[in-house]
Amino acid sequence: MTKMVEVRVPNGFSIRRIQKQDYEGVIKTLSILTTVGAVTEKQFGSIVEYWDTQKLPKGDVYKYNPYVIVEDSTGKVAATGNVIIEQKLIHECGLVGHIEDIAVGSEFQGKKLGALLINKLTEVGLESGCYKIILDCDPKNVAFYEKCGFHTAGVEMQIKANL
Amino acid sequence: MTKMVEVRVPNGFSIRRIQKQDYEGVIKTLSILTTVGAVTEKQFGSIVEYWDTQKLPKGDVYKYNPYVIVEDSTGKVAATGNVIIEQKLIHECGLVGHIEDIAVGSEFQGKKLGALLINKLTEVGLESGCYKIILDCDPKNVAFYEKCGFHTAGVEMQIKANL
Repeated sequence: MTKMVEVRVPNGFSIRRIQKQDYEGVIKTLSILTTVGAVTEKQFGSIVEYWDTQKLPKGDVYKYNPYVIVEDSTGKVAATGNVIIEQKLIHECGLVGHIEDIAVGSEFQGKKLGALLINKLTEVGLESGCYKIILDCDPKNVAFYEKCGFHTAGVEMQIKANL
Repeated sequence: MTKMVEVRVPNGFSIRRIQKQDYEGVIKTLSILTTVGAVTEKQFGSIVEYWDTQKLPKGDVYKYNPYVIVEDSTGKVAATGNVIIEQKLIHECGLVGHIEDIAVGSEFQGKKLGALLINKLTEVGLESGCYKIILDCDPKNVAFYEKCGFHTAGVEMQIKANL
């Protein structure tokens, strides 16, 4: 049994699904991770709406599970991440959770919010019925994910569009 | 620019989206890859229907793109694979294609059908607007995907459900 270390939500923080009002905080936090580019509040709202309306064939399971950790006193977004649930044929029409776009705000580093986020997204995926949760990471982050209970499983390969 | 080698469809074969009648051939082919387990024809039909009805916010783009290569003279499924398109916020509300569940039937090995399938799924993903296509593979298959135009990009991490 793979042991996943339980991480408690620190005092003064909450963890919940992304809502439309999180626009500024989510865009700012994701910008630490990678290029976000020009995303208007309207576009953000449309994507959140889309994420909130996609369900899987087996009942009340969201396909997209975008989460934020917010600082209660200020309402600031401290961290964000997503787990996308894929419907397969293999493993008896099984489900696999893909963790994506994990980012922790620079002023919120060092509080184990990354581990909390991974813990929560993994829990959401497993409770939705996933037989496994996977993610791709930079080699320098392997130790962090091992502490979260993950193990190395393969190599990520990529091809980019020509722009 | 990453050069993707064009692979032509060999004489006597066709490549197309999965249909309900592909039930036996797809289950048999996927069983080479991994555990498929008990999947009835009815369940298969429901999953295919689900895959055929999921679209992305931006217009006429399928979320799921399950393909088969079939042998024309016998109707046999020679190979199968999927590219799942994920809606992100980053990269200006960008799309990423995830290639999954690539399998070539044992009697159809050695005809470059795997490369053809990867080529087709990548093309479908890029034409749908993906800024990149990614997949996870066993280290022993890295050379194959490099020949298909992919490069190593990270480490796949995994956690399994307790059963």
